[in-house]
Amino acid sequence: MSGSHLDHHAGIDAQAGQAAKQGLPVLSDPVAVAQALIRHPSVCPDPGPAQQMLADMLTELGFQVWHLPYGEGAERTPNFFARLGQAGPHICFAGHTDVVPPGNEAAWSHAPYAADIADGVLYGRGACDMKGGVAAFVAATARHVAKGRDAGSLSFLITGDEEGPATYGTVKVLEWMAQEGQIPDYCVVGEPTNPAIMGDMVKIGRRGSLNAHISVEGVQGHVAYPHRADNPVHRLLTILSALQSQPLDNGSDWFEPSSLQVTSVDVGNPSTNIIPARAEAKLNIRFNDLHTGAGLTGWIQTVCRQHAPSAQVTVRISGESFLTAPGRETDALVRAIEQVTCRTPKLDTGGGTSDARFIANYCPVSEFGLVGASIHKVDEHTTVADLETLTRIYETFLEGVMA
Amino acid sequence: MSGSHLDHHAGIDAQAGQAAKQGLPVLSDPVAVAQALIRHPSVCPDPGPAQQMLADMLTELGFQVWHLPYGEGAERTPNFFARLGQAGPHICFAGHTDVVPPGNEAAWSHAPYAADIADGVLYGRGACDMKGGVAAFVAATARHVAKGRDAGSLSFLITGDEEGPATYGTVKVLEWMAQEGQIPDYCVVGEPTNPAIMGDMVKIGRRGSLNAHISVEGVQGHVAYPHRADNPVHRLLTILSALQSQPLDNGSDWFEPSSLQVTSVDVGNPSTNIIPARAEAKLNIRFNDLHTGAGLTGWIQTVCRQHAPSAQVTVRISGESFLTAPGRETDALVRAIEQVTCRTPKLDTGGGTSDARFIANYCPVSEFGLVGASIHKVDEHTTVADLETLTRIYETFLEGVMA
Ligand SMILES: [Zn+2]
Ligand SMILES: [Zn+2]
Repeated sequence: MSGSHLDHHAGIDAQAGQAAKQGLPVLSDPVAVAQALIRHPSVCPDPGPAQQMLADMLTELGFQVWHLPYGEGAERTPNFFARLGQAGPHICFAGHTDVVPPGNEAAWSHAPYAADIADGVLYGRGACDMKGGVAAFVAATARHVAKGRDAGSLSFLITGDEEGPATYGTVKVLEWMAQEGQIPDYCVVGEPTNPAIMGDMVKIGRRGSLNAHISVEGVQGHVAYPHRADNPVHRLLTILSALQSQPLDNGSDWFEPSSLQVTSVDVGNPSTNIIPARAEAKLNIRFNDLHTGAGLTGWIQTVCRQHAPSAQVTVRISGESFLTAPGRETDALVRAIEQVTCRTPKLDTGGGTSDARFIANYCPVSEFGLVGASIHKVDEHTTVADLETLTRIYETFLEGVMA
Repeated sequence: MSGSHLDHHAGIDAQAGQAAKQGLPVLSDPVAVAQALIRHPSVCPDPGPAQQMLADMLTELGFQVWHLPYGEGAERTPNFFARLGQAGPHICFAGHTDVVPPGNEAAWSHAPYAADIADGVLYGRGACDMKGGVAAFVAATARHVAKGRDAGSLSFLITGDEEGPATYGTVKVLEWMAQEGQIPDYCVVGEPTNPAIMGDMVKIGRRGSLNAHISVEGVQGHVAYPHRADNPVHRLLTILSALQSQPLDNGSDWFEPSSLQVTSVDVGNPSTNIIPARAEAKLNIRFNDLHTGAGLTGWIQTVCRQHAPSAQVTVRISGESFLTAPGRETDALVRAIEQVTCRTPKLDTGGGTSDARFIANYCPVSEFGLVGASIHKVDEHTTVADLETLTRIYETFLEGVMA
């Protein structure tokens, strides 16, 4: 561990001077930091330079950095863990430096890696997902460090493969952190959680997700002689009907009701007078904390066996549901958001998945970042004002939680 | 109309002499007649020579023949109506001279148009469907005529397009017959109705058949946000469930219960996390005399509108159900079968469709012919013994019904 403490730094002006020496932007300025990161293209998996620049920034702020690449060859993923200070509470910022591909670059009104600012809007791949969020946390850290207080410690969990399979990213770094005694007291993931306006929404959990594929074999035959055939479409329809006959639940304290969606049914029978030999279906379940992936898998298998004993059922659990029930740190985050934006965020558990699902296995975690409306699209952007707002929220949160 | 009556002919020997003069087989011999017909290939639509030979045979037996071709160009279909005598009852034999293609000729153990006989079995395309049946009726007629009785009259309704679209065949001839006052009192269709053994089964009706195609449009979206989407798969599953929730009926006096078979459901969604925009299904209903095509169409449309107001429903009715409830003529046919085969045939209404569905609109009709196991296959065949059995059944039937 580094001997650096939060009070080892003299102030923002001193940092700016040092940063400039290394070709780094002014670290207390989230816009400059975001622009610097965007200008290092890092399509998933991040090949490294953007992440190295981030590590350099944290080193500059006094953090000790452990580079933790995992995987081999094309799957090699750069990651790092960085920590400043040893005193509690230990607050971790988790994020990713990789971005999704730009798509049709000609369709962008500003080149995806130029980080142009026009009319107060910063354009670029990763502007909100999530180089902008990373930049706001760097800037908040720089400002926090500049205050010279000696309470709490800060860390960064950074991966280069959040948008990809995520096999050699956050999961592996967390294993290392557990071994090294580096599990924080609380983690904030900087994903863009606000649907429309800064302060809209904090994610305190996510539903689990399960995909099932059901294949039913029957006995082919002519429609005029159904007793000589065994219609697999009818068996499959009965299964799907049974799976949908009742709501999975009515929601829980922090979750909406679980939802089952049949996404495809496929027979592909070109004939109108032949009962086909096989029918298949795919479904997805987004489930709350009243269920587990294993429990739902067993239920699906039982229903299938009941109506089609020979049905083949394949289930893949992409993630279990998780929840960080509101407590001291989440309260501090909510108060910081209220103070800076004058809005009370919704504590939400809806939507897709993020690396927070892995972190939840080790410590309480919430997610809060920029406005996510433009993520993964052409002309991804954030406003300069939002970057400053987010920086002030993170800064206020750190102050509150470490008070 | 011809002046010929059943008693204008002196006997089988005289006919044989005359037939031989014209290059015709001995008309009282069903095997010789069947061989002659098979040796004139007449893949649907029959180009004519086989049917012309049949017309010559009937002319030879004293029938007046009306050639009734309908359609133009490739759809031109040769048909004829032939009648002998004016006294009642008027019994009509209906059949077709066209055959399905031979398929892979190399796979036949006997060339499809050679009409070879081996070990008492006659091989050839049309041997049982239905040049054999036609031959048995010609032979039965020849024997009946030879007896010189003056009761009843006989007719033949022959088409060259039963195996094809049947647009310019039996339907058109029946219209002509109705205009000309030639509708018979009873009609026997010579299709091969026996599943395994002569005497198994008489068809006295058929179920109707209806095909429906249902297409449901929804609103595409991510599975994590189902409230922003409208899953067309769920709407379609609800429709199919509702259509299958109750049996259509429990059968009627002469019919099995109607049957609804969903033959395909197709979405083709390659993604596991996207709710698709459209879902489609196909179904077939085989319905008995408790339903009509129009009634079922209305029911399907109502169910679809209820669960998916914008669903597109296309219904095609291939045929309505029909029934000739047992009466004097069918009783005579059953007694003839019992007398010749010592078996009591099942009076059945199952299976596929034939031209009997058109005839049923004009007069009582039943179907009885050879054993149908090999129809439309390679090595189509009938036994010589079955041809003689069928001839004797038809002959006994004519005697009984005209007594
Ligand atoms: Zn992200
Ligand atoms: Zn036929």
